[in-house]
Amino acid sequence: MTPAFLGIDAGGTSTHAVLVLGDGTCVAHARRSGGNPTSRGRTDALNAIVEAAQDALGRASVTLGEPVAVNECVLAMAGEPDKIDTPVLARAVGLTAGSVHLASDVEAMYFSSACEPEGSVVVAGTGSVAARLSSGVLTQAAGGAGWLLGDGGSGFWIGRNVVRAVVAQLSGLGPATGMTPSVLEAFGVPGDAGAPARQKLEALVRSAYAQPPVHLARFAPIAFALADHDDAARHLLERAGEHLAVLVERFPGDGPLVLGGSVVTRGFLPRPGLSGALAAALHGRDVRTAENGGAGAAFLALTRSGPGLSVARRAAHRAGHRAAHARITSTLTDRPLP
Amino acid sequence: MTPAFLGIDAGGTSTHAVLVLGDGTCVAHARRSGGNPTSRGRTDALNAIVEAAQDALGRASVTLGEPVAVNECVLAMAGEPDKIDTPVLARAVGLTAGSVHLASDVEAMYFSSACEPEGSVVVAGTGSVAARLSSGVLTQAAGGAGWLLGDGGSGFWIGRNVVRAVVAQLSGLGPATGMTPSVLEAFGVPGDAGAPARQKLEALVRSAYAQPPVHLARFAPIAFALADHDDAARHLLERAGEHLAVLVERFPGDGPLVLGGSVVTRGFLPRPGLSGALAAALHGRDVRTAENGGAGAAFLALTRSGPGLSVARRAAHRAGHRAAHARITSTLTDRPLP
Repeated sequence: MTPAFLGIDAGGTSTHAVLVLGDGTCVAHARRSGGNPTSRGRTDALNAIVEAAQDALGRASVTLGEPVAVNECVLAMAGEPDKIDTPVLARAVGLTAGSVHLASDVEAMYFSSACEPEGSVVVAGTGSVAARLSSGVLTQAAGGAGWLLGDGGSGFWIGRNVVRAVVAQLSGLGPATGMTPSVLEAFGVPGDAGAPARQKLEALVRSAYAQPPVHLARFAPIAFALADHDDAARHLLERAGEHLAVLVERFPGDGPLVLGGSVVTRGFLPRPGLSGALAAALHGRDVRTAENGGAGAAFLALTRSGPGLSVARRAAHRAGHRAAHARITSTLTDRPLP
Repeated sequence: MTPAFLGIDAGGTSTHAVLVLGDGTCVAHARRSGGNPTSRGRTDALNAIVEAAQDALGRASVTLGEPVAVNECVLAMAGEPDKIDTPVLARAVGLTAGSVHLASDVEAMYFSSACEPEGSVVVAGTGSVAARLSSGVLTQAAGGAGWLLGDGGSGFWIGRNVVRAVVAQLSGLGPATGMTPSVLEAFGVPGDAGAPARQKLEALVRSAYAQPPVHLARFAPIAFALADHDDAARHLLERAGEHLAVLVERFPGDGPLVLGGSVVTRGFLPRPGLSGALAAALHGRDVRTAENGGAGAAFLALTRSGPGLSVARRAAHRAGHRAAHARITSTLTDRPLP
């Protein structure tokens, strides 16, 4: 049996499992639906995590021609990791002696694109958060107070304001916005030009309150899609960019700045003109991007094994870690998901 | 038995019952806790409504020396009046032949301070809404889309932003605000100067998410209390005032403009310098204020009885209505609640 190291990033939208050998070579990875128990429920989240892990193990066996033995497993997630039954995961991946180590989602996101012991990370997906790493460990975090109290500039923040702009238009309390037809369609409200605005408004409001509030995050892409043509969408993204700029500037220290989450990687970065505040905050920083924390979780699994577990001895292994990190990120992209 | 007319305003915070004679003379009123089934639950809401009504009937019997017979009853409320078992209320107030008529809370609020058939009303309590009356009936409304999608400038809007400002300060993402000690105290978080901000933040966030979101409305008074001394509080109320100005300007037609709800009557109006936008929107309007919709609900009960029920015949009775309205509002204040 080939010894291997397993990293799992259990996000709200999708779960990524990455399996690497002792030198960092990626031998398999796999994706499943969201694995966060807070948004998905305990059972569905655990199922997604276990399936992603077992899928990766199965693929690795085929690639290597023999089964792999998981030496270490790191599960990265936000929120309430104690809601995941980690012994079930340990048994499912054949971990007898060892156990599953937990990591934060932002730490895994950082190590997906950086291995420097000093650096910062800003993630804007459904929520938004910034963190700082020193001596290879997460020492400070800001934001992440959730949809009701924080998460400025996040997918929820943008999506809620998209829907609020449409509600304001239909109420006669705000200007017309080109986002209205897309929002009505997404809520299943007929956009019939002849129907009274009040009727559309009532159907939209009823439908929106019937869902959990965080589901409003799915309307964020509408703002990005229309930003070049619609004042309300552009203004909203400028304000979101100001919130994200505050997160970027929260930890201005040395080292790389890793940006993760769909709002940044698929929203703002492909359209840098959208927010002057965010562009200004990123100016002069060593910016890298990460799609998810799978590779970072695998890196943490690898470097926490054996002597790597000790922070004090980590410096001596840094050169080896850098090589392993480069190998993870280069070989991971060699293995596209089917 | 003396014939009488009963109006009940079932709000989220309190329920007001007002009992008047045929000429409008108020013979009793009573107050109980919130009677809105959406925020209080069906049973508690119905109990508050029935108790307020029976209390008013009991007081009237004492005042008049004989029992009163309720001829008409109007129940005014926002949200979902179908959640109130009105036959139970009808039996409790001795309505055998007639039944309980429903009215909207904003309509009752309007008629608490006006009886002109053309006019506007803006209510900002936990939520915020504007409405227009024509020929004595409510014809248009705007706002009131609830805490998630609308309610700009409302108690919820202000309270949520008070807590967000404190969360931003404790996260290092926003400036220091004098509102922080009051908010921490209200959440039961020790304000010990030595405790780390992160620890206070986590306790506050945990406590806030354990409550229904609309409970954040109770933090709105903190912004008004500190507005003269704190930049964050003042800025927040300026933005709230801009939202309320949009509601005021939504229905600019002739007739009185009735302002109701604690955010306006106990927040903005006693401190007119707080929002330039709101003051500008009110300039030149025939502004009146209402504490609650109890008197308006009694007026609706009185004028909807007999020929008053017909909108077409309402004009002929207008002079009588004006006199009755004046009598309700003048005699109501003669009877302070114990």
